[in-house]
Amino acid sequence: MADRNRRLVLAERPTGMVNEHTVRLEESDIPEPGADEALARVRYLSIDPTIRTWMDDAPGYLPPIAIDEVVRGGGIAEIVKSNSDLYKAGDLVFGFTGWQEYVIASQATGYQSLPDGVPATLALSLFGITGMTAYFGLIDVGRVKEGDVVVVSGAAGATGSTVGQIAKIKGAAKVIGIAGGPLKCAWIVDELGFDEAIDYKNENVAARLREAAPDGLDLYFDNVGGEILDACLAQLALRGRVVLCGAISTYNDRGTMTGPVNYRNLIVKRARMEGFLILDYFDRLDEARAEVAGWLAEGKITSSEHIVEGLEHAPGALNLLFTGGNSGKVIVEV
Amino acid sequence: MADRNRRLVLAERPTGMVNEHTVRLEESDIPEPGADEALARVRYLSIDPTIRTWMDDAPGYLPPIAIDEVVRGGGIAEIVKSNSDLYKAGDLVFGFTGWQEYVIASQATGYQSLPDGVPATLALSLFGITGMTAYFGLIDVGRVKEGDVVVVSGAAGATGSTVGQIAKIKGAAKVIGIAGGPLKCAWIVDELGFDEAIDYKNENVAARLREAAPDGLDLYFDNVGGEILDACLAQLALRGRVVLCGAISTYNDRGTMTGPVNYRNLIVKRARMEGFLILDYFDRLDEARAEVAGWLAEGKITSSEHIVEGLEHAPGALNLLFTGGNSGKVIVEV
Repeated sequence: MADRNRRLVLAERPTGMVNEHTVRLEESDIPEPGADEALARVRYLSIDPTIRTWMDDAPGYLPPIAIDEVVRGGGIAEIVKSNSDLYKAGDLVFGFTGWQEYVIASQATGYQSLPDGVPATLALSLFGITGMTAYFGLIDVGRVKEGDVVVVSGAAGATGSTVGQIAKIKGAAKVIGIAGGPLKCAWIVDELGFDEAIDYKNENVAARLREAAPDGLDLYFDNVGGEILDACLAQLALRGRVVLCGAISTYNDRGTMTGPVNYRNLIVKRARMEGFLILDYFDRLDEARAEVAGWLAEGKITSSEHIVEGLEHAPGALNLLFTGGNSGKVIVEV
Repeated sequence: MADRNRRLVLAERPTGMVNEHTVRLEESDIPEPGADEALARVRYLSIDPTIRTWMDDAPGYLPPIAIDEVVRGGGIAEIVKSNSDLYKAGDLVFGFTGWQEYVIASQATGYQSLPDGVPATLALSLFGITGMTAYFGLIDVGRVKEGDVVVVSGAAGATGSTVGQIAKIKGAAKVIGIAGGPLKCAWIVDELGFDEAIDYKNENVAARLREAAPDGLDLYFDNVGGEILDACLAQLALRGRVVLCGAISTYNDRGTMTGPVNYRNLIVKRARMEGFLILDYFDRLDEARAEVAGWLAEGKITSSEHIVEGLEHAPGALNLLFTGGNSGKVIVEV
């Protein structure tokens, strides 16, 4: 065990991708747990696109990360010393650990135990925020149903790859993934069972959608925003549903953002576009995890993790999400 | 009775507003009703923004009006001669009469009798497409509920003015109308009972919305699209609902259209944006008309018609909708 707590604080707000000036590595004393508190050592960090949005000084569903504050993010930590009845040494817990090595766990921090029998990395991917986002977005917001033609963007990402697999499980007639590059496209079709892939880096998405889904999209799960959202809006089926999960194509690019011109097709198609946040489903995670665990046991769903080693590489790991450098869930092993 | 049928056919597709080249006045023989048909004389035309969209050669919920075809539009006609059991001379019927003086009515044309005891102009406004659009858009799509803060654009138009009044009847805590110019703004507050008006021609809509609805909009009924839609998206309340009814600000302006940049706020606010067409509610018009008739009898709702005389002035009447030259329902008296 190191005798200091290393942590990454926000040094300045990035204007595009995070770079070497965005965060600063600091050392501080390892905090001492008080009464009813425990000390935990952070083992894994969940790297999610939303972290980038918190770095902007803009209103959102959570306040911006303050300058000089530890970068906010989910993670898994191991209890190393406990004065609390809630935790005992050796327990693995999940919560907003932030980008640092040591945290204090207490009732106030709300860290949760990992689901039984779930390995730590899977707890951050399939059973974590990204997998649960896929589950509730597709089922609760998108109301996926048998026979649907489903399209998901960011299809090789942690959420998108899970969306496509759950759509198949739920009886979608056709699942089309939009991803960047031939390797990812091959992966989602060959390994994850998507029916078709569209390579947005090398193909005309609008033309390929018309070809692959000539009768329109019943459900589009949007992780990216931008031109791909617009192309999907243009190809909606009657009473189509657009689930807004994220807009990763725009997070580094606030200044020049444009909106989806084809939103007007929502009128013509009597269609619905709806946003959601997984935060609102925290009281229903157990039900979702139980169902996903069943699919996992039956071999119907798989999860992929992209592990980056070392706390100091968290900023680069975050950039992977925007450069498309990852397949599956990006996790930093602290 | 004239001995010729005068009709306005689409001569060329407009690029912006319709002008003197858009339609051509033609004369033809008055059609002779065959077996099970009736001849009807058109008395009133319903002038609706959607007519402008049908003049474009673009996909929509109905096919474009063909060149040399009579301009499509709703109207009220009086049966003058009948070989049909469905109609007798003197009956007033409603349907897609088009911009012409005489039409053949038959089972195939689907003309409907006017609701009992409803004057012809009211049958086109409050009890017609525009009033029914307000009713179902607000209640069925927007699910207006007690305590809602409701904003409607095009608030002095036929649909918008009805939306605001129904919202008050349904218990909205505050109803804010967005309209162009001080006269319209005064009219919707003083005569129609809106709580507040925003004059988009002379005020900063975004700033005024923040002031008038500091806790956000629970429901925004959009008739206009463009910058006003964007300003309302930015000010949505948690779980806000955006009802997409029309995008009148864009109908003459396809080339340079932009989309609503602030659609991303749908995620942050877990909000929903949904389009609809009144066509889908034709089997429920009776229930809606009965409720509206009750409100009318109780003096809770009012309707305003803007009558333009003469078939040949229909194109100019259509332009009124886009220049903001009207308050209430625009009707051409043929």
